Amino acid sequence: MRAANCLRPVEINRQSWGQAPGRVLYQSGETVVLCTASVQSRVPDWMVGKGKGWVTAEYNMLPHSTGSRKNRDRSGKVDGRTTEIQRLIGRSLRAIVDLEALGEHMITVDCDVLQADGGTRTAAITGGYIALVDAIRSVLPEAQIGTPPVIDSVAAVSVGVVDNEIVLDLDYPLDFAAQVDMNVVMTGSGRFVEIQGTGEEATFDDDQLAAMLKLARSGIAELTERQRTALAN
Amino acid sequence: MRAANCLRPVEINRQSWGQAPGRVLYQSGETVVLCTASVQSRVPDWMVGKGKGWVTAEYNMLPHSTGSRKNRDRSGKVDGRTTEIQRLIGRSLRAIVDLEALGEHMITVDCDVLQADGGTRTAAITGGYIALVDAIRSVLPEAQIGTPPVIDSVAAVSVGVVDNEIVLDLDYPLDFAAQVDMNVVMTGSGRFVEIQGTGEEATFDDDQLAAMLKLARSGIAELTERQRTALAN
Amino acid sequence: MRAANCLRPVEINRQSWGQAPGRVLYQSGETVVLCTASVQSRVPDWMVGKGKGWVTAEYNMLPHSTGSRKNRDRSGKVDGRTTEIQRLIGRSLRAIVDLEALGEHMITVDCDVLQADGGTRTAAITGGYIALVDAIRSVLPEAQIGTPPVIDSVAAVSVGVVDNEIVLDLDYPLDFAAQVDMNVVMTGSGRFVEIQGTGEEATFDDDQLAAMLKLARSGIAELTERQRTALAN
Amino acid sequence: MRAANCLRPVEINRQSWGQAPGRVLYQSGETVVLCTASVQSRVPDWMVGKGKGWVTAEYNMLPHSTGSRKNRDRSGKVDGRTTEIQRLIGRSLRAIVDLEALGEHMITVDCDVLQADGGTRTAAITGGYIALVDAIRSVLPEAQIGTPPVIDSVAAVSVGVVDNEIVLDLDYPLDFAAQVDMNVVMTGSGRFVEIQGTGEEATFDDDQLAAMLKLARSGIAELTERQRTALAN
Amino acid sequence: MRAANCLRPVEINRQSWGQAPGRVLYQSGETVVLCTASVQSRVPDWMVGKGKGWVTAEYNMLPHSTGSRKNRDRSGKVDGRTTEIQRLIGRSLRAIVDLEALGEHMITVDCDVLQADGGTRTAAITGGYIALVDAIRSVLPEAQIGTPPVIDSVAAVSVGVVDNEIVLDLDYPLDFAAQVDMNVVMTGSGRFVEIQGTGEEATFDDDQLAAMLKLARSGIAELTERQRTALAN
Amino acid sequence: MRAANCLRPVEINRQSWGQAPGRVLYQSGETVVLCTASVQSRVPDWMVGKGKGWVTAEYNMLPHSTGSRKNRDRSGKVDGRTTEIQRLIGRSLRAIVDLEALGEHMITVDCDVLQADGGTRTAAITGGYIALVDAIRSVLPEAQIGTPPVIDSVAAVSVGVVDNEIVLDLDYPLDFAAQVDMNVVMTGSGRFVEIQGTGEEATFDDDQLAAMLKLARSGIAELTERQRTALAN
Repeated sequence: MRAANCLRPVEINRQSWGQAPGRVLYQSGETVVLCTASVQSRVPDWMVGKGKGWVTAEYNMLPHSTGSRKNRDRSGKVDGRTTEIQRLIGRSLRAIVDLEALGEHMITVDCDVLQADGGTRTAAITGGYIALVDAIRSVLPEAQIGTPPVIDSVAAVSVGVVDNEIVLDLDYPLDFAAQVDMNVVMTGSGRFVEIQGTGEEATFDDDQLAAMLKLARSGIAELTERQRTALAN
Repeated sequence: MRAANCLRPVEINRQSWGQAPGRVLYQSGETVVLCTASVQSRVPDWMVGKGKGWVTAEYNMLPHSTGSRKNRDRSGKVDGRTTEIQRLIGRSLRAIVDLEALGEHMITVDCDVLQADGGTRTAAITGGYIALVDAIRSVLPEAQIGTPPVIDSVAAVSVGVVDNEIVLDLDYPLDFAAQVDMNVVMTGSGRFVEIQGTGEEATFDDDQLAAMLKLARSGIAELTERQRTALAN
Repeated sequence: MRAANCLRPVEINRQSWGQAPGRVLYQSGETVVLCTASVQSRVPDWMVGKGKGWVTAEYNMLPHSTGSRKNRDRSGKVDGRTTEIQRLIGRSLRAIVDLEALGEHMITVDCDVLQADGGTRTAAITGGYIALVDAIRSVLPEAQIGTPPVIDSVAAVSVGVVDNEIVLDLDYPLDFAAQVDMNVVMTGSGRFVEIQGTGEEATFDDDQLAAMLKLARSGIAELTERQRTALAN
Repeated sequence: MRAANCLRPVEINRQSWGQAPGRVLYQSGETVVLCTASVQSRVPDWMVGKGKGWVTAEYNMLPHSTGSRKNRDRSGKVDGRTTEIQRLIGRSLRAIVDLEALGEHMITVDCDVLQADGGTRTAAITGGYIALVDAIRSVLPEAQIGTPPVIDSVAAVSVGVVDNEIVLDLDYPLDFAAQVDMNVVMTGSGRFVEIQGTGEEATFDDDQLAAMLKLARSGIAELTERQRTALAN
Repeated sequence: MRAANCLRPVEINRQSWGQAPGRVLYQSGETVVLCTASVQSRVPDWMVGKGKGWVTAEYNMLPHSTGSRKNRDRSGKVDGRTTEIQRLIGRSLRAIVDLEALGEHMITVDCDVLQADGGTRTAAITGGYIALVDAIRSVLPEAQIGTPPVIDSVAAVSVGVVDNEIVLDLDYPLDFAAQVDMNVVMTGSGRFVEIQGTGEEATFDDDQLAAMLKLARSGIAELTERQRTALAN
Repeated sequence: MRAANCLRPVEINRQSWGQAPGRVLYQSGETVVLCTASVQSRVPDWMVGKGKGWVTAEYNMLPHSTGSRKNRDRSGKVDGRTTEIQRLIGRSLRAIVDLEALGEHMITVDCDVLQADGGTRTAAITGGYIALVDAIRSVLPEAQIGTPPVIDSVAAVSVGVVDNEIVLDLDYPLDFAAQVDMNVVMTGSGRFVEIQGTGEEATFDDDQLAAMLKLARSGIAELTERQRTALAN
């Protein structure tokens, strides 16, 4: 059994399915997300003429990625959870892109969950970063991590309180049992991009918060290393 | 000019407009939110038969609450920001309600922003709590704060980093200028319900996080006192 | 108890909530409508290039404005009653604006019902007129009532047959009991803009019609006077 | 040329296209409306268990019924004009049906405009009445006009002010030129069901109103006679 | 009773209801479709600047065209069957129009089913062709069948296997009983445009296919003759 | 280069991504479709109480499965092509299932295109059949191909006319160049389920039709063999 302070095994497969320049199959334990990214030579209407680029993300679960089939978002109303997640992914990726350096281009990162076992949003951010880098490289062959327009790396992990114990990288059973659930997004250089901590009909105190943040930081350091290796190949 | 560690002036007006048992006009500086709440003798379909209640919230900005008119959410697609905010309000209020003690009832809290100057979501939580208590009292005359089904109070405040300074309770100009924006929801007894911290195309470190949380805690203690006074009248 | 030929008490509060140049809290008895108005420097697509302006209105009831909570119009289908009412308000306001003199500007008047006790559409017209004048004044400081582009004032009242008696200004219980319900919109100079009379599973004859119109005329004369006073302050 | 106080030629063709028990092709000059009606053994959800029936109407213009093609109402938003018209038709027909006597049945009257030359809503009411009677007769063979559940007949006509002259039964060119446009719905026994008079960026006075109502009354008397004849065949 | 290898009686009425240049009431037995067509001086966005025209079709059943009332497609979701049919009609008509010769014009053919007794889609194609020719003639007075932009005629018929017998032109009872249902679209010169054969929870073999195609060919030859006669008048 | 009468290489991977009992990654050349299937213990509303089951399919292309990114079907309007394809898949699968033997169960087959290079609908049918068999086996362990409720196998292939040559199994470049495109669905026992042949602004004659059907038959025989092998493992 996995220790409470260990990540699930990660597998990163670049050049996966699809026709986008960035196409990464990202696996974290039993969670599998296909992250694809491409660059368009246009920006959303509200950004035209500002000389800046934009990064946007879409998140989707395939109907049979979960134990009981989930209906597709075809009714015209994307559900609230999906909306929140894709906004989070977009913000996280924008934090490490120099939008001015990008010029008037838009990068769209699609995160399609093929198999879900908890942590799909953090997998989407961590894998989406790699797809984004590949997409940018395809149009800007000279681009390297750490140099514009990608100014840092970004990764994410969940952490929580389960049975009053601090646990890293919640799979579905742990997430279901958690009193507190926190998603942490950090850069490769160790700065916070986003913290979203929620008590699930429960609350938490300062000590629990500190312990969760410490554990998240160590997990993200490990994921950053995995990203670096994958992109070096 | 207001000090960086001070709240804006708060005004709480119970028995305001509408026909709901809970109807509170909550003002924080130039931000004005009408919070109304009522109790229905039913629960959402997916909760029927569980013997538990539910608390849900809707958030809406009136078109002319902002400087340039905002279109109504009538297209069938509630925008992502609205969705996130009303989910946050709902979770925050559920954290201090004993849903089992509530029985199969649903409380709907409507938060309509009449005038917006930043901090509308935290105003909606802080004011919504009072409307919720009034709504519960109307059907359960004996209910008191601290006794079931309301087991604690809840309030929220924003905090951020502006020009590298930690600032409490961001109004719109401060929010616009902020590098980091964090919303903190806490109970009257001082436990976290929710933390949402976001770098706006920026990031933050551990020290900044600690300073923001400390300032938020002090602001919420003051709001909790204001809620107590308002409900005592 | 109010006499059958008397209006409910009217209160008009300019400079109310919101950030629009026109923002009026209009109260008629227990009915409370927030009317806000602003001017945009554009017209609807189908009017571009005609050198004329446009006036449009939106009507909305807050969910808890009524005794049992009313769902928001967020499904993508605005209900038929709302559609009819906001078209009526728009036509009524356009009748007293010289659209050529307005030039290619659009005035949007929002009528949000905070508390409903019958007569919300007539309150929206009577109060909306004041918000419209304030909005026009904000962009055309020299504009005065009676001079272009506002060429007259407009006000509205309901009248009906209840227990075979002709009654002015129906509140909700009267409206519910009415056999015939008629909304009359007139200019300050005493000409009809709109008459909408409906038998509610009932019918009416010439004499009843004449009596209703006479009573409506007297009510509107009084409302016109109230508008004049409010705008003079 | 038709005199200002004359109706256009009317043609009523029962047993027209479709499979409904009531199916009437109603022509008034160049305006052609196919009115069909059937009876369902159920009522809308909000009427279940009240022991009463309901009458509802739908109005639709075929795309090529007008000079320039009109898009179909398939976007999920029925336009405001259509909504108003079908509500008017429904109310007008309900006024002459004894809903208690109908029992828990619903009559749906569809009014599809095949060719439009003004006055489509009044044609829909006048022709829809005949379709409704045929539909009721099909399920209640004994039902006769004047006996329950049809307690009267109903017909409608437009009247207006064109070049300061009072004109009956406006075709499209007259409607387009009209300063004032009024639709009047009356029973066969001569009582008003509905009056909707609107100044089109214009207003009207008491004398004009009186003259319009008088002319409408004479036109409706003639239409009532036509309905009687058609149903007698 | 009609023989298995005979068409139902056909009636073609040009200059029918509506204001389009092409307006044909097409009857095949008890099936009645109003086909109207007009030419717009624009093409869909994705075709702009290609110097080619486009032909599109819309198909709709009136609510009371069928035995039990069918709801209108007003929910924003056109049902799958309707979508398929109108795409089929559009492709069929485009096959006999020289889109380059048409230039940047769009022809819209509306097929509204007034009465349905099986074979509505084939009636829509066969009648729609005539409306299309009339529409083109109205803008291109010199255009003749067989000369650009109409380069051939097109007609359609259904054929099927009922009780193991090959049957031409299925009416509703035959269609309901059919094991196999095939729609065949052919040009006047005898070439296939489209074949859509479907086993209804059944399958078919080569011999049945050959027999169906042969019978369809003879039926279409007869329909082509009827079209020629109608257009010659 | 592949010969005109040869299939592309096929790869069938059972136990692929997801949590459904049937989950097959089906590859035909560069076309990759993830077919997943599960069984629900309910049927659509209109089938309740008939003692029969139902098989339905959903088809979807991932945004980056194609060369230029395709938007998701989230607007509330599934596009016409998608609607047609998923109806075709559903009919094809129902043709080889004994719905009575299935009882009141519904099988949902999801076909998500991960990579598209022509022939996605035929891949979805051929792969979807395998996922369906696995899903049925999971609830009915004893079920075998050829025995109830699966009474036959089903597979599909495209065939067309390209440069006047008859070609099997069109990839995207061939499909784009094809004058005629035909999809053929057949059972393992060699009977037709569905034939859909379309001239793309072109037409075809009897000889071409015969040649296409012959070639399709040989391709489907080969696919049937591949399905048999895959399911035997």
